[in-house]
Amino acid sequence: MTHTIRDLDTPCALIDVARMQRNIDRMQARMNQLGVKFRPHVKTSKSLPVTRAQLAAGAQGITVSTLKEAEQFFADGITDILYAVSMAPGRLKQAHDLQARGCALKIITDSVAGASEIGRFGAQNNVVFEVWIEIDTDDHRSGVKPEDASLLEIARVLLNDGMTLGGVMTHAGSSYEYNTPEALERIAEQERAGAVRAAQRLRDAGYNCPVVSVGSTPTALSAKHLEGVTEVRAGVYVFFDLVMHNVGVCSMDDIALSVLTTVIGHQVEKGWAILDAGWMAMSRDRGTQNQQRDFGLGQVCTEEGEVLQGYLLSSANQEHGILSRVGEPDSDIAQRFPIGTRLRILPNHACATGAQHPVYHAVQKEDETAVWPRFYGW
Amino acid sequence: MTHTIRDLDTPCALIDVARMQRNIDRMQARMNQLGVKFRPHVKTSKSLPVTRAQLAAGAQGITVSTLKEAEQFFADGITDILYAVSMAPGRLKQAHDLQARGCALKIITDSVAGASEIGRFGAQNNVVFEVWIEIDTDDHRSGVKPEDASLLEIARVLLNDGMTLGGVMTHAGSSYEYNTPEALERIAEQERAGAVRAAQRLRDAGYNCPVVSVGSTPTALSAKHLEGVTEVRAGVYVFFDLVMHNVGVCSMDDIALSVLTTVIGHQVEKGWAILDAGWMAMSRDRGTQNQQRDFGLGQVCTEEGEVLQGYLLSSANQEHGILSRVGEPDSDIAQRFPIGTRLRILPNHACATGAQHPVYHAVQKEDETAVWPRFYGW
Repeated sequence: MTHTIRDLDTPCALIDVARMQRNIDRMQARMNQLGVKFRPHVKTSKSLPVTRAQLAAGAQGITVSTLKEAEQFFADGITDILYAVSMAPGRLKQAHDLQARGCALKIITDSVAGASEIGRFGAQNNVVFEVWIEIDTDDHRSGVKPEDASLLEIARVLLNDGMTLGGVMTHAGSSYEYNTPEALERIAEQERAGAVRAAQRLRDAGYNCPVVSVGSTPTALSAKHLEGVTEVRAGVYVFFDLVMHNVGVCSMDDIALSVLTTVIGHQVEKGWAILDAGWMAMSRDRGTQNQQRDFGLGQVCTEEGEVLQGYLLSSANQEHGILSRVGEPDSDIAQRFPIGTRLRILPNHACATGAQHPVYHAVQKEDETAVWPRFYGW
Repeated sequence: MTHTIRDLDTPCALIDVARMQRNIDRMQARMNQLGVKFRPHVKTSKSLPVTRAQLAAGAQGITVSTLKEAEQFFADGITDILYAVSMAPGRLKQAHDLQARGCALKIITDSVAGASEIGRFGAQNNVVFEVWIEIDTDDHRSGVKPEDASLLEIARVLLNDGMTLGGVMTHAGSSYEYNTPEALERIAEQERAGAVRAAQRLRDAGYNCPVVSVGSTPTALSAKHLEGVTEVRAGVYVFFDLVMHNVGVCSMDDIALSVLTTVIGHQVEKGWAILDAGWMAMSRDRGTQNQQRDFGLGQVCTEEGEVLQGYLLSSANQEHGILSRVGEPDSDIAQRFPIGTRLRILPNHACATGAQHPVYHAVQKEDETAVWPRFYGW
């Protein structure tokens, strides 16, 4: 049976498939032009149809943020998987099991202690893990600095225990903090140069380092060249969101994920419409709070997706959202958005909003939707 | 097979069952003493074993925030259910279906327009909904003011269409903003008086108004008396959290929900330990940000649950948490919390953190855990 948007109960998550495909094609074309492989980060969608579309466009392998994602996508036939979070020792058995079943899983570490745990488990269990070393190129989160002495020591420990050094990887997460082409190009170059430098140091010391993997959505879309890089990773580009709009790497019309909601009440004196999309449907992500433009908890659009300038989801409780106008309260709010009016909300952060929903409703043509399952948990 | 905490993969959500039971017993004893029924809000847990424990202690009926919760708990044999979010017209059919199957569902509205939608659907479909009118007693969110002229008009419209007026209900959500016994007692009295006044106006106008329902965790625990009130609702008290600790209605030792996590790396110069619990495991809730004590994204404890004063989850990405010390960075961080160290994090907001997890691991004795499923979505 064919469902249309109008058949859907609210709140629910919508994917505009045409926009998503445009985002996928744009990124893949850029990667092809830059001469690198592309390994999308599927933590954004955790959904097979989305990931299949990325692979169909030319992506080679995927990046995951949990071994649950690795398990799910491996069960769907995807074998080339990078688990891009430092290995917890207690999860090595699960990684081993995946590998034993045929998954070409790559794991990462950024410390001698971490490498020792991997090496010890590997040696004891007669398993060779392919390990990539995480490089810190922007002081943002994890990783060893390109010039740090421990970089070579990590490689030595891994090889000593019989592991394979697959390469280096970095993620310039601080790129989210910029919003000019110049600054983005600069952080992209910093990310590239740091990863390439780390690989060079390893090679100079006699280690193989086949892969040099970099990426974040802003840097992937801003790098001028990627000399020395073999692959790029990015996740949120597939849907984009208001944070990425503020960073300047997409327009509002590129945002492919939204939450469909219904007006359930008003507080007319305050200029509020009350929606059935609260933080449970949007997430608590306030990623635009410290950016050049604060979208509250989301940008309000018509049911068809037309942006209603100046109308935001200004605050939320668990299952209540408060829609209001920026600046002076809208005294016509109850006439403008009567009870039962359906609206779409564009999210601050697609990864966080998607995670609140058991399924996406993929809007394939104006009036046809399909259910795309997604999973969660660990 | 018996599992212990040490068998659990991280990140995962733990319930300290002894604490939970103590929280349940404390609230129920208070309600008994105040001479009112208690109708817990099960949006906090969305889990049958938790709800069963609340009912076993003496609760009468439940409150839900979604019709999905109503469906799930009705399937588990619970029939007396208040859906405490203004009815979206598009969901009336689902409410009707629940009622037709034997669920004693109560729905709410706070406007003439909303009442008309309910009445029209009811009249057209030959169904009598029991409707409660939501009262706004603290300018916080939804509801009609106790003195508002439309209060009587809502009642008139409902009865005119053949619906049943079940009563009035209010939720003083602004109680979360206070932190002294005096202020909490004052807002509790304001909540009580407003609801009772609305009921009185309805009765004076000749309408039956059997139920007067009030509540939030802070007001439920702070009301001096509840004259005229017939039932109280509260949700988060079952687990408590750091927000409630700051409000002053629980101690740190009452918090029954935590997230078990593993140290996966360090940035020693910054005094950081990197954890495998990021915002996906904790939620993005920053509820303590503007309170008297900001706990970042959570309070760090040992694996056994002992609070480590001064150590917070200070920031997070999707699957990375950053643990740091308040004030001066801890230069011994890597020795204090070596890779593989397991810790518990107390959450800002139990409702938001629980929602990120497919199951709870109920810690029943020190070394025994049971899986308590929970559901999500709409």
